Amino acid sequence: MRWTHTFIPTMKENPADAEIPSHRLMLRAGLIRQLMAGAYTYLPLGLRALKKAEAIIREEMDASGAVEILMPALQPLELFERTGRREAFGNVLIHFTVKRGDRVIPLALGPTHEEVVTDLVARHVSSYRQLPLTLYQIQTKFRNEERPRFGVLRTSEFIMKDAYSFGANLQQLNEAYDRMYDAYCRIFARCGLSFVPVEAESGPIGGEASHEFMVPAANGEDRIVRCPACGYAANLERAERKPPQPPPQDPERLQPLQQVPTPGASTIEQVSKLLGCTPRQMIKTLIYVADGEPVAVLIRGDHEANEAKIRRALGAEHVELADEETVRKVTGAPVGFAGPVGLKCRIIADHDVLSVTDAVTGANVADAHLTGVNRERDYRIDAVHDLRFVVAGDPCPRCGESMELVHGIEVGHVFKLGTKYSEALDATFLDEHEQRHPIIMGCYGIGVNRIIAALAETRHDEKGLIWPLSLAPYEVLLISLNVTDEQVRQTAETIYDELQKAGAEVLMDDRNVRPGVKFNDADLIGIPLRIVVGGRGLKEGVTEIRWRDEAEPRKVPLNETVPTALDELQRRRAAQAEAARTAIQNVARQVR
Amino acid sequence: MRWTHTFIPTMKENPADAEIPSHRLMLRAGLIRQLMAGAYTYLPLGLRALKKAEAIIREEMDASGAVEILMPALQPLELFERTGRREAFGNVLIHFTVKRGDRVIPLALGPTHEEVVTDLVARHVSSYRQLPLTLYQIQTKFRNEERPRFGVLRTSEFIMKDAYSFGANLQQLNEAYDRMYDAYCRIFARCGLSFVPVEAESGPIGGEASHEFMVPAANGEDRIVRCPACGYAANLERAERKPPQPPPQDPERLQPLQQVPTPGASTIEQVSKLLGCTPRQMIKTLIYVADGEPVAVLIRGDHEANEAKIRRALGAEHVELADEETVRKVTGAPVGFAGPVGLKCRIIADHDVLSVTDAVTGANVADAHLTGVNRERDYRIDAVHDLRFVVAGDPCPRCGESMELVHGIEVGHVFKLGTKYSEALDATFLDEHEQRHPIIMGCYGIGVNRIIAALAETRHDEKGLIWPLSLAPYEVLLISLNVTDEQVRQTAETIYDELQKAGAEVLMDDRNVRPGVKFNDADLIGIPLRIVVGGRGLKEGVTEIRWRDEAEPRKVPLNETVPTALDELQRRRAAQAEAARTAIQNVARQVR
Repeated sequence: MRWTHTFIPTMKENPADAEIPSHRLMLRAGLIRQLMAGAYTYLPLGLRALKKAEAIIREEMDASGAVEILMPALQPLELFERTGRREAFGNVLIHFTVKRGDRVIPLALGPTHEEVVTDLVARHVSSYRQLPLTLYQIQTKFRNEERPRFGVLRTSEFIMKDAYSFGANLQQLNEAYDRMYDAYCRIFARCGLSFVPVEAESGPIGGEASHEFMVPAANGEDRIVRCPACGYAANLERAERKPPQPPPQDPERLQPLQQVPTPGASTIEQVSKLLGCTPRQMIKTLIYVADGEPVAVLIRGDHEANEAKIRRALGAEHVELADEETVRKVTGAPVGFAGPVGLKCRIIADHDVLSVTDAVTGANVADAHLTGVNRERDYRIDAVHDLRFVVAGDPCPRCGESMELVHGIEVGHVFKLGTKYSEALDATFLDEHEQRHPIIMGCYGIGVNRIIAALAETRHDEKGLIWPLSLAPYEVLLISLNVTDEQVRQTAETIYDELQKAGAEVLMDDRNVRPGVKFNDADLIGIPLRIVVGGRGLKEGVTEIRWRDEAEPRKVPLNETVPTALDELQRRRAAQAEAARTAIQNVARQVR
Repeated sequence: MRWTHTFIPTMKENPADAEIPSHRLMLRAGLIRQLMAGAYTYLPLGLRALKKAEAIIREEMDASGAVEILMPALQPLELFERTGRREAFGNVLIHFTVKRGDRVIPLALGPTHEEVVTDLVARHVSSYRQLPLTLYQIQTKFRNEERPRFGVLRTSEFIMKDAYSFGANLQQLNEAYDRMYDAYCRIFARCGLSFVPVEAESGPIGGEASHEFMVPAANGEDRIVRCPACGYAANLERAERKPPQPPPQDPERLQPLQQVPTPGASTIEQVSKLLGCTPRQMIKTLIYVADGEPVAVLIRGDHEANEAKIRRALGAEHVELADEETVRKVTGAPVGFAGPVGLKCRIIADHDVLSVTDAVTGANVADAHLTGVNRERDYRIDAVHDLRFVVAGDPCPRCGESMELVHGIEVGHVFKLGTKYSEALDATFLDEHEQRHPIIMGCYGIGVNRIIAALAETRHDEKGLIWPLSLAPYEVLLISLNVTDEQVRQTAETIYDELQKAGAEVLMDDRNVRPGVKFNDADLIGIPLRIVVGGRGLKEGVTEIRWRDEAEPRKVPLNETVPTALDELQRRRAAQAEAARTAIQNVARQVR
């Protein structure tokens, strides 16, 4: 492709409202343009990268045995009412009505397609003989993002590869899940991403087990906990830690229990200031309602309670913080002064609570706290669990080494859904004995646009993007340095033709602009291999070749330019494939 | 692909609410499934055909120099207000609001992308040096169809290839238009469609000149007029005819003008019955308002007035039938009794009115008509034009031969838009002399789903679909007749592997079902080349080969099966490419 025949509106200046590198660089390199908040047009360079990501995804999905279909974005809202997702999605689900004659039809724009695909399978699968089956599509999704931001990382319209597996039993579910997990590893590795599969909660889609595929990145919106020693990784919500051994308590040395006035001080910060103690010395007493029953949750003052863990520990369906009235009923005091001493309801505690001696807690009395609070002597704990969010330095639940906390960009997610959708939408099958069961489902998503954004976010320098060969819009940027010099122009044309004939993807910068503009744009758009044809070089009988990640260009004799470029391309392709294989093996070595 | 590994839910029975062959066959062959009125899921066979059509379109667009981008479906409603298309589209435009925090944001789902692409170009093109430029995308469109029907021919969500050209002058517009026209011919020919480019009105998108690409089909919703002799073709709205020579009138033999009572009879049918005359003998007098001025339009009683022709003949912006009050003011009578005699306003007549001697017309008096009405003697005509819809048998405007009227499916449309959008959205450029002008645009659409529907509608027999090789979901259907017979199974597997290795696209029917089911499904899904491996054949050492359009299978020695199939595939591919070239040449010979 000739630069003058396509549309690459590069920008010299940083756009004002682009907060993170990927957004800035994707705008500046002319990959995307914003139409409005949360909606972007892909320009030729961006679209080519996107299509290459799609092609890799499609290849790996097909190889995994998944079957491609294409479902509509427009969907009957009624399906979302049947599965409860209209409520669960809330304002994120875009829905509206259209008029047809005198009928008013409520429609939704699919945020994902569990409902539609389950409805399809419900109509066409009736026997265990038709299972297992995995369907997928690469299709546009719509979600009303309250705060669209970070360029194409969080938009209201995006391309998703969504797959759905249907099985007759848990084994079929697990096999489909593992095949998708492996395919995802191959996809992200081939796309040149550094990724980590992490254990995850399942979120509003529901389900029983899930992994997210994260690209560690300083500006990622997600947080990942990982163990550098053994490779354990989970998202922050899900991450566990090795429970500490509670230190022995010497009953002789405990302080006496004492009530102290703390007028107006109810938060950890206020109380610790007032009483001159550290948050580590305090115990938070949180009153929850779990499936209708109040329960007190004790967390060390410097930690944060993790509701998902609390829910799992209690084996409850629904868990939420108690309202003011319930708090008053259970503690006898207003919100902010709950403590474990004398509490009537069930009490569960996080492991780290056991290590707090002479704790400061609420007194279950307005404007008062207790000091010298000690378990067993002053209050009882009904059960001890992991109930808080992990913090950096916590011991790994597998190997006990210190874990780290990093930001990440979620590029994929695999879920074991179970029967939530098949039960709601009557997707059943008859087994060998003519018994009817709901089909067991899994669902598997990849944010295609996010692959590009995550690459831009993690592979760039101060001058611009650095594409991996596999997703680069073009493999070669051929710069014709002075198009008004006939010899330069002709030589570039010849190299252009020969490279293209040999199957290389070449963009030729044939613009009549200053060399400085061409070099800056070359760094900015980050095409892997750059070949420069200039008047000075031609006098010496050379061109200059430089990979985007090399510091200096190399002079190559003119007649060796094309074979050298083709040879180096071939080596790089092989090296990238090898790097992808290694990455996949490293991930595979992790305990899943 | 193995049949048991994909998802092809064929149906034996005709689905109840499918009215036309393409809809019935696409459902029965398992290409599509309806999600709701106007929204279909593409299943694997349908999607493969769709993707092949997309690939051909992309190739030809790229070859024509158009540049691919991808614009969002979600668009600010405000853009449609600026171009007036919110009103023009009416209920067809899907729009709604979403809430983000306290803001309420009015959005539309793009029915096409003139606004978005013009806005994009307005921001990035400022000089004649950046022109011409043609951008295209293959993207999903949304339109609220009042009456979604005919399967995927008319849906509320569909895939469109939409291209937009931007030029600095008329020559650039014309060149872009011609390149698109030629690319469209190549696309439809390569897709195996019998198509006709027809002259067309431009419709709600606005503009100055346009052609539609029509596939003649009995169930098409559009009507085309064409001349078998010279190839002239236009859609019914646009089609012209050679004006007849008015017959000489013998003033001596004219009947006298006479007023007759016609109580309650105001339509052509009522009056002709009452007075015993034929519609051909009558003249309709239609009162229009053209840019605010009343004008009478005379049309022979058996013809239909064509408003677009009337508008053009008058050189008016807006033309509409006059309301009752205006009719009363102009004629002095209620609606239904207008006639040319004594009329005060301007009178224009269709050519055929000149041939009516002793006409019957309204009397401009309630419940009365005139007989023996003759022009010049009784009334004047200010101008004569082509003002009516063509009917079958009318003479061709180019060669004078008799024309025919057929139904067609519109698969593509090219428009010269002019400056409608660039003026509304400030897309301007500076010329060589630093003068600012609006960019001159064209727009060019292809209904990708309709290509598949039009093929199904025009290429089938009573047993099922008959795919052209270029869009067939697979080229070869390999039927393993009895999968429980190990020799049959093994032989089929070997042929399957060898054909695939040689690059053929093979679907292997490896289901454990009766041969009758396999043969019926084979005819239904219509894969071009069928190879049958069966126990009886293997005993003779043969397989059976049959093209879907051949009457009988041919026995081929087992060891010649693969080379024969590959050889025949190669010949067919070449033959289809040759047929496409011939079709393109035939179209090119037509006067554009």
